[in-house]
Amino acid sequence: MPEFLSKTQDGLAQIAAYQDQYRDSAPKLLGGDHTLEACGVKVDISRQRINEEQLKRLYQIAEDIHLIERHRNMMQGVQVNPTEKRAALHTVLRDPESKLPQAQEVRKNLDEMRKFSYEVRQGLWRGSTGERITDVINVGIGGSFAGPHFVYDACQDMNTSSIKVHWVSNVDGWVLVNLLSQLTANKTLVIVSSKSFGTAETLLNAETILNWFKQQGIDGKDLLKHFVVVSSNGKAGEKIGVPEAKRFPIWDWVGGRFSVWSATGLPLMIALGPTHFDELLRGAHQMDVHSIEAAPEKNLPLNLAMLSIWNSIALNAGTLCFLPYEHRLRHMIQWLQQLQMESLGKSRLVNGELTFFPTGRIVWGGLGNDAQHTFFQCLRQGVARTAIDILWAERPAHSLTVHHDFLLANAKAQANVLVTDDEDSLSVNTVNVIRVRDISPYSLGALMAMYEHKTTMLGNIFGINPFDQPGVELGKRLARELMEEEQ
Amino acid sequence: MPEFLSKTQDGLAQIAAYQDQYRDSAPKLLGGDHTLEACGVKVDISRQRINEEQLKRLYQIAEDIHLIERHRNMMQGVQVNPTEKRAALHTVLRDPESKLPQAQEVRKNLDEMRKFSYEVRQGLWRGSTGERITDVINVGIGGSFAGPHFVYDACQDMNTSSIKVHWVSNVDGWVLVNLLSQLTANKTLVIVSSKSFGTAETLLNAETILNWFKQQGIDGKDLLKHFVVVSSNGKAGEKIGVPEAKRFPIWDWVGGRFSVWSATGLPLMIALGPTHFDELLRGAHQMDVHSIEAAPEKNLPLNLAMLSIWNSIALNAGTLCFLPYEHRLRHMIQWLQQLQMESLGKSRLVNGELTFFPTGRIVWGGLGNDAQHTFFQCLRQGVARTAIDILWAERPAHSLTVHHDFLLANAKAQANVLVTDDEDSLSVNTVNVIRVRDISPYSLGALMAMYEHKTTMLGNIFGINPFDQPGVELGKRLARELMEEEQ
Repeated sequence: MPEFLSKTQDGLAQIAAYQDQYRDSAPKLLGGDHTLEACGVKVDISRQRINEEQLKRLYQIAEDIHLIERHRNMMQGVQVNPTEKRAALHTVLRDPESKLPQAQEVRKNLDEMRKFSYEVRQGLWRGSTGERITDVINVGIGGSFAGPHFVYDACQDMNTSSIKVHWVSNVDGWVLVNLLSQLTANKTLVIVSSKSFGTAETLLNAETILNWFKQQGIDGKDLLKHFVVVSSNGKAGEKIGVPEAKRFPIWDWVGGRFSVWSATGLPLMIALGPTHFDELLRGAHQMDVHSIEAAPEKNLPLNLAMLSIWNSIALNAGTLCFLPYEHRLRHMIQWLQQLQMESLGKSRLVNGELTFFPTGRIVWGGLGNDAQHTFFQCLRQGVARTAIDILWAERPAHSLTVHHDFLLANAKAQANVLVTDDEDSLSVNTVNVIRVRDISPYSLGALMAMYEHKTTMLGNIFGINPFDQPGVELGKRLARELMEEEQ
Repeated sequence: MPEFLSKTQDGLAQIAAYQDQYRDSAPKLLGGDHTLEACGVKVDISRQRINEEQLKRLYQIAEDIHLIERHRNMMQGVQVNPTEKRAALHTVLRDPESKLPQAQEVRKNLDEMRKFSYEVRQGLWRGSTGERITDVINVGIGGSFAGPHFVYDACQDMNTSSIKVHWVSNVDGWVLVNLLSQLTANKTLVIVSSKSFGTAETLLNAETILNWFKQQGIDGKDLLKHFVVVSSNGKAGEKIGVPEAKRFPIWDWVGGRFSVWSATGLPLMIALGPTHFDELLRGAHQMDVHSIEAAPEKNLPLNLAMLSIWNSIALNAGTLCFLPYEHRLRHMIQWLQQLQMESLGKSRLVNGELTFFPTGRIVWGGLGNDAQHTFFQCLRQGVARTAIDILWAERPAHSLTVHHDFLLANAKAQANVLVTDDEDSLSVNTVNVIRVRDISPYSLGALMAMYEHKTTMLGNIFGINPFDQPGVELGKRLARELMEEEQ
């Protein structure tokens, strides 16, 4: 076992040593004033069940395993994805001053995206019959969907263009049939987004949409005004029957679930405008800088990662429940689900041995205020141990202040209620309260980068590769075989 | 401990005796032909990890604890909700020939709902300025939202009226501001739905909507054309400032999460029409009959309940992951989450003692095809043990047959892949494959009643009360206090 790996396993074993002590009784709350802050994101960890000494121990473990140095390695282009022999450089996508060799391509592509978005928004890029683009269909699934979909929805108050984005991810024809019946081909732009361009769902959806264009008389060169591709595959256009379609590149050193900052974010840039997209990148970049510069006790992603380990190993909390008190963030749950579960849902360490520790934790959740009236009963008086992240924005994006006051009163009350002991309950919860001033591209960028770094730090601590997803290949092959059999 | 309770605890202990055997290694799949069928719902349990003998033992335990008799007691009006001293008679709501005393009120109310829905749909009931109703806002949260919202969305292909239903559940002003900006007051009908009419979120949302009507000059008696209430509270109209508002009653013997069959379903009946609503009731009623008549080995809800116990106790599976391969069922997850987690998230037995067994299991999930590209990696190669329900409809509601074939090929492949052993994985899954011919009010009624009965049977087996929700009161009180402090 390589040295860094035996160190991380030692660190985990130190935490596991608390398991017996807390098997039947839960530790007290940390309490006190424990709010960390960076890039406008405040994280209050005082409702974690840990004491000051144990918390210091977590920071010491982080230092012992050189967590921040290893995190910095990722950002400097070290090959941190060994199974796919790649770096993981999503942080370069948002660093305007990066000196890494990849930065040049990134800037060139961002300029292309800005130019194209500007043209579409200003009506300079038009459909083949000269009509302005009013509707964009993003065809993509998994990482080509979850991130931009969530941010688009979260920023609807900033969509000052008259352009609507529609999302086609899974292959259920119901979605497509209904969507296409509402749209006009000569006003519609299609972004087909797939890193590999081998994603069967995306190719089938793109084919059906192409046929719809042809039925409406748009074919041949005219299709170039209506189809663009986002892909690392130079033959992407050919694969959907539009060989010369404009292509926005992505690169093998960007994982799908970390790709909203790349051309995967093109629908966002078109809808929200390049300035807002730049703000998203700026928020994320500032969190990147924080993540490598802040000391362990002040480091937001490091705290979230180490406390996640504490919850899952020392306290045996089985799941992470994510509760935004903000309707606009309702699709953030799916994004976080993919980010954490696909990255950490691994049983083998980077050296090939099986792990002894609970790596991939189930992430679930719901809108906090709704969930109070559905599953909170189970969190309060059930039998599970659950780590909870509650998130809210201090300022509303609307004028109904009584509603916002009421919403936040509920969020604040529940943050306490969920960790209040109840004689009728065997359940144990811990709560992080995460706050931003408002929901903006900047604050979303910072929040998302915080969770990205939490996730990849967890990969480092567990000693697994958070950048591959080998477990999904068998399903793709079997589905393909079933389709071929039936033909 | 009363006799029935000591019997159920004995039964659970028999299942717990397998824990050691399966702590480190998972049992083999049941295999063979194990598809149960009732009311057009097929449940294939062959991917459960249990052998024939153990399965028979589960049926024997069900007989020993008189599970079906106790289930029948519920349907006959026995006071099965001891803490609130009530019966739980949601099954009467869908039984056209019930002889129970409650049936008369139910029929009278259904007739009122049909008449009102007919009038709104036909343009006989109009807004105060004589305009036809084009938009309905349902104001309700928890049980007054999750059920009708999911069914409305699932049945969009049957909404042949031009009436759209909008859903206002949580108190986030963002939703209301955006919704009201799109609507015209004199064409809008508001259904304010709350059993107690003490739900703070619903009252605040109703108040804001009422003010919007007044700003548009609709006030006084005119409001009677635009506001109706669904409540057991005779003063519901007064509480929202429309004292004489038409009221559709519900009753204390219907729990919120079991109430879609009552006047809580009014928005559904208006949008889909009384005939479709009757089909929903018919599907549920036929499942009710099945649930008390079928022998244990053929009984769908009983099998789901006993296998749930097997998964959570013998195999230590921590969560239920629900995966519909059907876009129209995307909101079914939230409905199921409330149904199971609010019903079973209890730590105390009906005699007041703390339970020794894992009652309320976390329910989560996502659209199957999307989830393949997000969290399936974790199900396949993570470290958790998960019980999975996969659901699909054989026939699509659209003409893109290639899409549907592809969707089902994926569903079928994944049903196998998710239980295929993988040397890179410590995760253990079990799968129920649940199929219906198509998504229709009838099949939805049957599916929903199946899960309702699974849930209340689980309450019986665990020895807890699945009909109350005492754990949410503290949160309500603290939020109210916070609001008052800040004023």
